[in-house]
Amino acid sequence: MLLSFSTWPEIEAYLKRSRTVVVPIGSNEQHGPTGLLGTDWLCPEIIAREAEKNADILVAPTFNIGMAQHHLGFPGTISLRPSTFVAAITDWIRSLSVHGFEKILFLNGHGGNIASIEAAFSEIYAESSFARRDAGFALKLVNWWDLEGVGDLAREQFPEGHGSHATPSEIAVTQWAFPELKKTADFSPPIAPNGPIREARDFRARFPDGRIGSNPALATPEKGGALVELAARSLVKELDGFSSERKPQA
Amino acid sequence: MLLSFSTWPEIEAYLKRSRTVVVPIGSNEQHGPTGLLGTDWLCPEIIAREAEKNADILVAPTFNIGMAQHHLGFPGTISLRPSTFVAAITDWIRSLSVHGFEKILFLNGHGGNIASIEAAFSEIYAESSFARRDAGFALKLVNWWDLEGVGDLAREQFPEGHGSHATPSEIAVTQWAFPELKKTADFSPPIAPNGPIREARDFRARFPDGRIGSNPALATPEKGGALVELAARSLVKELDGFSSERKPQA
Amino acid sequence: MLLSFSTWPEIEAYLKRSRTVVVPIGSNEQHGPTGLLGTDWLCPEIIAREAEKNADILVAPTFNIGMAQHHLGFPGTISLRPSTFVAAITDWIRSLSVHGFEKILFLNGHGGNIASIEAAFSEIYAESSFARRDAGFALKLVNWWDLEGVGDLAREQFPEGHGSHATPSEIAVTQWAFPELKKTADFSPPIAPNGPIREARDFRARFPDGRIGSNPALATPEKGGALVELAARSLVKELDGFSSERKPQA
Amino acid sequence: MLLSFSTWPEIEAYLKRSRTVVVPIGSNEQHGPTGLLGTDWLCPEIIAREAEKNADILVAPTFNIGMAQHHLGFPGTISLRPSTFVAAITDWIRSLSVHGFEKILFLNGHGGNIASIEAAFSEIYAESSFARRDAGFALKLVNWWDLEGVGDLAREQFPEGHGSHATPSEIAVTQWAFPELKKTADFSPPIAPNGPIREARDFRARFPDGRIGSNPALATPEKGGALVELAARSLVKELDGFSSERKPQA
Amino acid sequence: MLLSFSTWPEIEAYLKRSRTVVVPIGSNEQHGPTGLLGTDWLCPEIIAREAEKNADILVAPTFNIGMAQHHLGFPGTISLRPSTFVAAITDWIRSLSVHGFEKILFLNGHGGNIASIEAAFSEIYAESSFARRDAGFALKLVNWWDLEGVGDLAREQFPEGHGSHATPSEIAVTQWAFPELKKTADFSPPIAPNGPIREARDFRARFPDGRIGSNPALATPEKGGALVELAARSLVKELDGFSSERKPQA
Amino acid sequence: MLLSFSTWPEIEAYLKRSRTVVVPIGSNEQHGPTGLLGTDWLCPEIIAREAEKNADILVAPTFNIGMAQHHLGFPGTISLRPSTFVAAITDWIRSLSVHGFEKILFLNGHGGNIASIEAAFSEIYAESSFARRDAGFALKLVNWWDLEGVGDLAREQFPEGHGSHATPSEIAVTQWAFPELKKTADFSPPIAPNGPIREARDFRARFPDGRIGSNPALATPEKGGALVELAARSLVKELDGFSSERKPQA
Repeated sequence: MLLSFSTWPEIEAYLKRSRTVVVPIGSNEQHGPTGLLGTDWLCPEIIAREAEKNADILVAPTFNIGMAQHHLGFPGTISLRPSTFVAAITDWIRSLSVHGFEKILFLNGHGGNIASIEAAFSEIYAESSFARRDAGFALKLVNWWDLEGVGDLAREQFPEGHGSHATPSEIAVTQWAFPELKKTADFSPPIAPNGPIREARDFRARFPDGRIGSNPALATPEKGGALVELAARSLVKELDGFSSERKPQA
Repeated sequence: MLLSFSTWPEIEAYLKRSRTVVVPIGSNEQHGPTGLLGTDWLCPEIIAREAEKNADILVAPTFNIGMAQHHLGFPGTISLRPSTFVAAITDWIRSLSVHGFEKILFLNGHGGNIASIEAAFSEIYAESSFARRDAGFALKLVNWWDLEGVGDLAREQFPEGHGSHATPSEIAVTQWAFPELKKTADFSPPIAPNGPIREARDFRARFPDGRIGSNPALATPEKGGALVELAARSLVKELDGFSSERKPQA
Repeated sequence: MLLSFSTWPEIEAYLKRSRTVVVPIGSNEQHGPTGLLGTDWLCPEIIAREAEKNADILVAPTFNIGMAQHHLGFPGTISLRPSTFVAAITDWIRSLSVHGFEKILFLNGHGGNIASIEAAFSEIYAESSFARRDAGFALKLVNWWDLEGVGDLAREQFPEGHGSHATPSEIAVTQWAFPELKKTADFSPPIAPNGPIREARDFRARFPDGRIGSNPALATPEKGGALVELAARSLVKELDGFSSERKPQA
Repeated sequence: MLLSFSTWPEIEAYLKRSRTVVVPIGSNEQHGPTGLLGTDWLCPEIIAREAEKNADILVAPTFNIGMAQHHLGFPGTISLRPSTFVAAITDWIRSLSVHGFEKILFLNGHGGNIASIEAAFSEIYAESSFARRDAGFALKLVNWWDLEGVGDLAREQFPEGHGSHATPSEIAVTQWAFPELKKTADFSPPIAPNGPIREARDFRARFPDGRIGSNPALATPEKGGALVELAARSLVKELDGFSSERKPQA
Repeated sequence: MLLSFSTWPEIEAYLKRSRTVVVPIGSNEQHGPTGLLGTDWLCPEIIAREAEKNADILVAPTFNIGMAQHHLGFPGTISLRPSTFVAAITDWIRSLSVHGFEKILFLNGHGGNIASIEAAFSEIYAESSFARRDAGFALKLVNWWDLEGVGDLAREQFPEGHGSHATPSEIAVTQWAFPELKKTADFSPPIAPNGPIREARDFRARFPDGRIGSNPALATPEKGGALVELAARSLVKELDGFSSERKPQA
Repeated sequence: MLLSFSTWPEIEAYLKRSRTVVVPIGSNEQHGPTGLLGTDWLCPEIIAREAEKNADILVAPTFNIGMAQHHLGFPGTISLRPSTFVAAITDWIRSLSVHGFEKILFLNGHGGNIASIEAAFSEIYAESSFARRDAGFALKLVNWWDLEGVGDLAREQFPEGHGSHATPSEIAVTQWAFPELKKTADFSPPIAPNGPIREARDFRARFPDGRIGSNPALATPEKGGALVELAARSLVKELDGFSSERKPQA
C-alpha cells in the first residue's frame, strides 16, 4: 500500500496485520550535468513502490528534502540544516508511533543524510532513555545501495567510475523509471575527482561539475532496471526480517 | 519545468530568464472515509504540474508534510510541530534564495498550514528586519482554493456540503488525477458537523469520521477536472503578476 | 478581577467558581504619525478592563509585545520573532493550565499576531496529540474588532479610510481611554496606501509614515467610547459562551 | 517619556538627544497572602514612571512575565522557562538596538530573574564576540532595591522581617501606588521561614503561604512612598551615569 | 571515588550507600599573562579530588567548558553560548538523575558561569513545576571560593590585589597542583583595572592583558596548598550537609 | 602544547607557526564490568598527549561527554542529547575559529559520537553555505582506532573477541595509562553478544553486562602501550597532512 494514496480506514485495517512501515528518504540536490535534482529521493521511492507491487508492505510518503548543505553552490539544491532535519524526522516518527507503528524503516537515497538520520534516531530514543521507559518502536536506516546484493551488482555493472556522487547506478535507476528524462553531456574528465566534503563553496571548487569520483555516462536504463528489481526484492526481505524481530527480554 | 526532474545546469539557465518559483505545499492527513491521506499535498502538486504544461514556470518539489496535529487521532496522519514546520520552510526559502530566486510562491493545499507558513515568512523576514537590510526575496502564500475564480466555481459546483475538511472540491481534484483511486462510503450524516479545532482526541470526538462540514460524496472526477483547469490557469496569472512586481522605492 | 492586582488566595477562590481567563495580547509598534506605540496592547487591555467592571471575569496581565518585525523600520517598535512569541505564549498557557484554568481566551489587538498565536496553540496542542491524551484546556483567539457587533460599528463609524493599520477605530479606543494623549498630524495622503507586508525596509518604503490604508484623523474619543462599550459587552458574552462549552464525548 | 504612550516620530526625536532607555522588568507571581501577583513588575514600573515625571528619560513598556517557575504551586503565577525568557529579552534588545539605542538598562523587580537576565545579556553579547565585532550597545541590570540608598532605607524601615520574598518593602511600594488594594492577613508565623528554592512543589512545602523570611504586615503606603521617591531619584542618577559612559579605547 | 575512573558496577554499589555526587565545573579561558587557560576547571577538579582522598564522596568528570564569551578576544578561550551551556547542564543532570542521584552539587570555578548554571537549574526544575510533580533531585551550586572559610583565607593571604579575574588565589591553586607550570611576567600595572563585563572586544579594550583587578604575582604554591586543603575539607562538610537534607513535608 | 595548561600569550605565539589544533573527544559511559566509565574520553586524551610529547602540536581540552543515550541503563553514564552535543561542538569550533584556527581535528574515542559530530560539522558548514561564503576552517573527524595502522594492530592483537563496545583494545589503552586501575571479572559468556543499538532499556536487555561482542579479559597494559605508541605517531602524521592541505581553487 501507498500510504498517501490510501484512506485512514485502510491504514487502520493494515495496522491489524502489520506494524511495519517503510519511509523513502532522500534529498533534492545537484547530481552533475545529467543527473536529476530529485535523484536521491526518486531512487528509494522508485524501489519502494516497485517492492509494493508484489508484497503487502506499506510505503509512507517520500521525505524528499535532506541534508545537502555542501551542494548549495549548485542551482536547484534545497537543503535542511541538520538540526531541522533531525526535528522533522523525529516528528515523522512520533506521528507514525501514535498510530501504533512499531518498526519504522527509512530507505535512504543520500549518503549525506546518514549522520543526521542516525542523530535523529538517537534524539528520539534519548527521550525514552532519560525517562527510563521503552521507546515503543524500533528504527532502522537502510541505504538502498546496501540492500542485499545491490552493492555487488553495482560494482559488477560499474567496475570503475562508480564514485560516490552522481553515480552511474543512481542515475541508471532514474533512467529506468523516467527514460524520457535521460540526458547526456561531455564529461571532462570522464571520471570526476575525489576529495573531502566541506561547505558549499569549497565543494564547488573541488568538484566543478558536481560529480564526485563518478562517470554517469556509464548509466543505462537497463542497468537501472536490474538494480531496481533486485533492490525491490531485497527490500521486501529486509522488511520481513525487521517485522519478525522480537523485543529482547531483560 | 519541474525542478526535481531537471539538472542543475537547466536551473541555472532558467534563472537567467526568471527568478520565480512555485512550491506546492500540503499535508499528509486523514481526509474522511474516502479521501486520500495525501489529498492536501496532491492537490497543489496536481495544479502546479498542470500549469507547468502550458507555461514556462518552475515547480519545486512538493513539501508534503505540514501542520496536522489535530488529525493525529486518525491512522496515517503525519504531522510536523509548528516549530519544526517553520524551521523547515525557512530552510527551503534560504536554499532557494542562495540560488537567486527572488519570488517564492507557496501554493498551499491545507488550511491548517496557513498560520505556520505565515509565521515562517515572518521568522525569516525578521532576520533582515533585525539586521536593517533587504531580505532579497519576496514570499507569497496562496491557497489553491483562493486562486482567481476557483472559490466561485467550487461554491457553484457544491452549493451545500462543501464544508472545510475532506471537501468535495479537494476530493474531486484527486479523483480527476487518480480516477482509479476513487472510493465510496455511506456517509452518516451526509453532511458532517462543524466545530472548533483543538488537540487530536478532542477532534476525533467531535468529528468521528474525520470530515468537517462536508459531503465528499458530491465529488466527481469531472468537477475535479474543471477545478484543476481553472486553478492551473489562475496560477500562471498569479505567478505572472508576482514576477512583475517591483520593489518599492524608499 | 484583574489577576495582577489580586492575591493568590483570591485567584484560588476564583478558580472554585470559574475556570476561564482572558489574556489581553497585543504589540508595541508604530501606529503612524499620531498613534501610540502601545495601541495594540492598550486596546484589548482597555476593553477587557472595561468588561471586568461589570462581570465576574478574570483578566490576566497584558501580553504587550508581539510579532511586529515589519514595523522595525520605525523607532520604538519592539518585536519578538515568531519562534520566541510561540515559546512565550505556550509558557503562559502552561502556567495557567497548572492552576486549573480550562478555557483561555486571548483577546488580541494586532493582526500581525494572529498567525503566531494560532501556531502557538497548535504547538501546545501537538504535545497532547503526540502523547494521545487530552490537553486539559481549550484555547480561543478573538480579535477585539471581531467581537460581536464591533466590526459593524467600526464600518458604520468609518465607512472609508478605516484601512488595516493605524486604523481610526483603534486610535479612537486609545483616545477615549487617554484623551490627554490625543495627537494630530497632517496626513498626506489622507488615506494611506495598501500593499503586501514583508520585511521592515520593504514596509517603510511602501508605507512611509507607517499607516496602511487608513485615515486616523477620523478618530474621536466618542467613537472610541462607543467601540469600547460594545466590545466590553460582547467580550462578556464571548466568555460566557466559551465557559459553558462542554467537552465532546467520543 | 513613556515609550508605549508616544508616537514613533516622538521616539525618533528623542533618539537625537539620547540613546538610553530603561526597561522595567519583573514577574507575575504569588506574593504571599496579601501581596499582589503583579508586585514584581509593578514596583519597577512605578519607580520608573515616577522618575520619568522629573527627568527626560525614556521608559519602555514593562516586561511583566519573568522566571517564576518555583512559584507555580500558587494560583495566578505565570512563568517563562529561562530559555524562553532569554529568547524574549534578546529580541527586546535586538529591537531597541535596531533603532539606535546604545544604553539599555533593565530595572528589575524580581530576584528570580537575575540569572536569566544575565544569561540573556551573555547570549546576545556572544553573537558579537563570536563575530569579532562590537555589540553596538551596552546592557545593564539594576534591581530597584540596589539603587543607590534604597537598600539602606529598606533596612532602616524594616530592621527585621524584611526577608526575601513578599518583602514589606515591595508590598509597601504597591500600597503607595494602589492604596485601595492594600490587604491584610493574619500571618502565622509573623516572619516566614527561609530555605533553598527548588521546584514548585518543594517550594510550596517549605513556604506554605508563599512568603520567604518576610513579614509583609510591616508595610505601609508611607514607607512605600519614601522608597519610591528615593528609588526614582537614584534611577535618574544611574541613567545619567550610564549615558555618559564612554566606550573603552583599545 | 572518581566516577570516570570507576566501573558501572562500582557506581551501582556506591548508589546503595549514597545518592550524592559532586560535579567540578569551570571554564577554559584566558587568565592573564601567567594563568593557565584551564585554571577555572582545574581549581574545582583539584579541590574535589583532594577531598575525595579522605572521604567517601563521588566526583563526576569535570565540566570543563563554560560561559566565557567575554574572554574570546584572547587566544585559547573556548566558550559555550549560555543556551548551549544550559542545555548541556540539564543533560548532565538528567543523566545523573536516571541513575538515582538525588543530590547533585556543582563545584564551580568560574564567576561567569553562575548565571547560566542557575538558569539551567531553573530550566530543569521548571519541567517538574509545569508538570505538577516532584523533581526527584536537589541541585546546589557552590563556588569553590565560597566554601566555608576559603574566602576569609584568601582575603588574609591577599589583602590587596586579589581582584576578580586571574586572581592570585586561583593561580596559587594551580601552582600548587602543577608547580612545574608556574610562570612569571612583568605586570603593568601590578594591579589590573576594574570595570563592567560586556562583549569580547569591549573586554579586551578595558583589560588589555586579561586580568581584572588582580595581581597574580602574589600567588605562591604554598598559599595554593593552604587554600586547597581548607577547600577540600569544607567541601566534604558541604556534601555531608547536603546529603543529610530532608525533603520538606507539605 | 596542551592548551589548557598554557597561557593565552603562548597560544598567540603558537598561532604564528600553526593554525592546527586537535580536540580529543569521547564519552563517559559504562564499559562493561571492568572498563572505566571514562574509557572513551581517556583513550583519545592519552594518545593525543603522548603525541604531543614528541611533536609541536596543540591539544585542546578534552570534550569528555558525548552521545551515549543507549548506555543510560547503566549507572555512571552521562549523555548529551544529539541536539545538545551538536550545539556544543559548534560552539567549540566557533571559539577556535575566532582565534584563527583553520584546521580542527577531532580525535574521537566513541563510535556513538560519529553521527552527531558529522551532523555538527554540517550544521556549522551550512551557515557558510547559506551565506555564500567560505567557512574559514576545515574540520576533520578521526576515530583513534582508524589512525594509520592502528586497526591492523588491534586485529592482530585480538583476532577474536574484539567486538565493538568495551573492546580489549580500548581497555588496554587505559590499562597502560593507569595500570593501578586494572580490574578483572568473570565474563560470562567470554565473548559478549552482538545486536542493534536502540534506547537504553532495549540495550540493557540485549547486553546485560554492557559489552557488545567483546572479551575485555584479553586486554593487557603492554598491548595498550603498543597501541598508544603507534596511534600517537600516526596522529602526528595525520595532523601534518591536514595542516599542509591547501584550499581548492575555484
